[in-house]
Amino acid sequence: MDTLNIPTRTTQPRVVIIGGGFGGVKLAFALKNHDVQVVLLDRNNYHTFQPLLYQVATAGLEPDSIAYPLRKVFKGFRNVFFRMGEALRVHSERNVLETSIGDIEYDYLVIATGSKTNFFGMKELEDNAMGMKSVSEALNIRSLLLQSFEEATRTNDPKRRQELMTFVVVGGGPTGVETSGALAELKKHVLQKDYPELDLRLMRIYLLEAVPRLLNGMSDVAGRKAVDFLQAMGVNVLLGAQVEHYDGNTVQMQDGSAIASSTLIWAAGVAGADIPGLEDAVGRGRLKVDEYNRVAGFQNIFAIGDVAAMPDTPDVRYPNGHPMVAPVAMQQGTLLGKNILRWLQKQEPEPFRYFDKGSMATVGRNKAVVDIHNVRFQGWFAWVAWLGLHLIMLVGFRNKLIVTVNWVWNYLSYDRGTRLIVRPFRRKKEQL
Amino acid sequence: MDTLNIPTRTTQPRVVIIGGGFGGVKLAFALKNHDVQVVLLDRNNYHTFQPLLYQVATAGLEPDSIAYPLRKVFKGFRNVFFRMGEALRVHSERNVLETSIGDIEYDYLVIATGSKTNFFGMKELEDNAMGMKSVSEALNIRSLLLQSFEEATRTNDPKRRQELMTFVVVGGGPTGVETSGALAELKKHVLQKDYPELDLRLMRIYLLEAVPRLLNGMSDVAGRKAVDFLQAMGVNVLLGAQVEHYDGNTVQMQDGSAIASSTLIWAAGVAGADIPGLEDAVGRGRLKVDEYNRVAGFQNIFAIGDVAAMPDTPDVRYPNGHPMVAPVAMQQGTLLGKNILRWLQKQEPEPFRYFDKGSMATVGRNKAVVDIHNVRFQGWFAWVAWLGLHLIMLVGFRNKLIVTVNWVWNYLSYDRGTRLIVRPFRRKKEQL
Repeated sequence: MDTLNIPTRTTQPRVVIIGGGFGGVKLAFALKNHDVQVVLLDRNNYHTFQPLLYQVATAGLEPDSIAYPLRKVFKGFRNVFFRMGEALRVHSERNVLETSIGDIEYDYLVIATGSKTNFFGMKELEDNAMGMKSVSEALNIRSLLLQSFEEATRTNDPKRRQELMTFVVVGGGPTGVETSGALAELKKHVLQKDYPELDLRLMRIYLLEAVPRLLNGMSDVAGRKAVDFLQAMGVNVLLGAQVEHYDGNTVQMQDGSAIASSTLIWAAGVAGADIPGLEDAVGRGRLKVDEYNRVAGFQNIFAIGDVAAMPDTPDVRYPNGHPMVAPVAMQQGTLLGKNILRWLQKQEPEPFRYFDKGSMATVGRNKAVVDIHNVRFQGWFAWVAWLGLHLIMLVGFRNKLIVTVNWVWNYLSYDRGTRLIVRPFRRKKEQL
Repeated sequence: MDTLNIPTRTTQPRVVIIGGGFGGVKLAFALKNHDVQVVLLDRNNYHTFQPLLYQVATAGLEPDSIAYPLRKVFKGFRNVFFRMGEALRVHSERNVLETSIGDIEYDYLVIATGSKTNFFGMKELEDNAMGMKSVSEALNIRSLLLQSFEEATRTNDPKRRQELMTFVVVGGGPTGVETSGALAELKKHVLQKDYPELDLRLMRIYLLEAVPRLLNGMSDVAGRKAVDFLQAMGVNVLLGAQVEHYDGNTVQMQDGSAIASSTLIWAAGVAGADIPGLEDAVGRGRLKVDEYNRVAGFQNIFAIGDVAAMPDTPDVRYPNGHPMVAPVAMQQGTLLGKNILRWLQKQEPEPFRYFDKGSMATVGRNKAVVDIHNVRFQGWFAWVAWLGLHLIMLVGFRNKLIVTVNWVWNYLSYDRGTRLIVRPFRRKKEQL
């Protein structure tokens, strides 16, 4: 029985989408005003533009600029119903999704839940490290950073002060590179002025990566250039460095070395955010899907984006599934929408093939790296390309406008405007 | 013993200011780079521009636009030290202030803690009503408003739906008038589009005021015009309506009538946010001060702004103390700074006399009321004056810029951009 007050279907089949990220939104767009009923469920009432979360964490942007109300996204979609709630379990034998706000029946179910931070089972790390997958988590990092500086100002203990002024970012992918670069700029242009009582030369920023290079999905030259940029900005880049323990004060590495730091930002791994009821289809932390994004063992349950892995396809480029990036989710969402309409009209579906447009990462002002197949460039032009692309991808004209104003302001003034501790962050052990 | 790691004074006397609101900031400005050491303590690391809090609560502005980092305010003030922490108790016999981050000695202590919501001892009301004195509280109102609409969409119970779609604002001062007006605009221009499943004609907005008029501190014509504006916008203005009980579902009034509503915004009263240790000087919820803002019974403890009442002055206009508005706090802060410097130089201090520049309140787009002594005007021109004055008063060029962009955008698009539930609000009884 449905309890979400969705209009009863007469002839229209119902597509239930879990998650309003890049994949879920694109899918809803593909089904817009077609002869299906679409119900999109998300735990938040907004779409998060995850590529810019790190700028929220480092006080460059307001959360409101990179998040967009889902109801506004779907304005004028006569067949799309949004509900805010959390998916709890799939009852595939009854075609029912159990959620925090009630049960809903589906004809087609699409898991588009994205990914969650992966601590690889290290519980102590999970309790003490900061993830950066959501607006709340990014705001927690911003608060902790500022709280650490406030405490550093008032402590009389030099050891504690050094710990508070040391920031360790783990993970050499785009998020880790962008975050450590943004911290270096914050140090140079903002914190120095805000905390004249502190000797900012004591502030240390580390970027740790387990493999011997940065930006593993990109070209060698991009990875090397990122190291150069970061080192020139004063970031200590440690390659081949594997974190074993973190108790909130000391980062312990496998080779026996250690860094005293009260802030560890974990950007070293994500796992698909799968859902109870589909355990049999999970492999390597993602849901196994065929080339039509059908979850293994089901005809009417699909998974798209980060949560899905398509390992058995003829596409030899990605033997373990596609990279967990926005373009994959968007392309899968759009194609699945078309395929659902094709199935309904008894037409042949089209298998998914990823069109890789290239990748990019930014390090700091005037500094970015871009790979577009064999065209590779770095520096100012790459940085402008990065800015432009992210502005284009942001949902909504207002957000583009506000982000542009912020970026121009930050660029000209060397400032970061949004350094407020709106809700102080408390560690788990302090909450008890 | 000091434990805040403030440089030890040699010859400079120390002025400790509690609170970085309008009064505290103006006082620090008056003492800037003079031969005194200033320590300013605030529980937040930012100054809040309270007159625009209602726009945060009604999704018009981001919190970051109306708050400003205190460290940035004091950039280049060589003698001002900021500490984030909460004042706990004044130990006047030892000239020590006890705070959440340690103790600090003072030569002069200034209480500039502003005001807190006054529920007049009604515990049940306090547990269920929403205050609007801080950024967190304003964000809670925004979240509750949006959560109520989400729940109204999915409930099958018409009674519950009506309760969720009814908003009661209590208090006919500027905050109440501005909030209920903003809710009416949100209904007309935004919620209708966001919730096509709901019949928005069911949404009801009430403004309750205990006395028989609105904007009691302003002219009769301003009060009457505000009623006209609000009624034309669809707000039910109930004058002479006194709230007795509120359990989170039903607003019970003294005359026996009742309104079913799950949201009550309480803007009906504030009391001075006084501090333990000065109990003897409290009268009618504010600290009694003389015309130099000295707290009754002390020579080196002062109070300025909302928390202070100056009842025994020759100024017959304000027998119960000055109105609790920003200009009073700012003028008292500036004068006290000058007077402290005068005392230090053995000069005569100057008694405080409030220069009332007039008052204004806005109701909605193109609608405001302004009283400047006997010059009174309402409507579009008053609204432009309100906008201009608030932009001028906002601290910081970046905030002026972002607020302007938001206002222009909201005006042209009839939109409110920031309707995110970043952290869902939970009532006290739900938190247990």
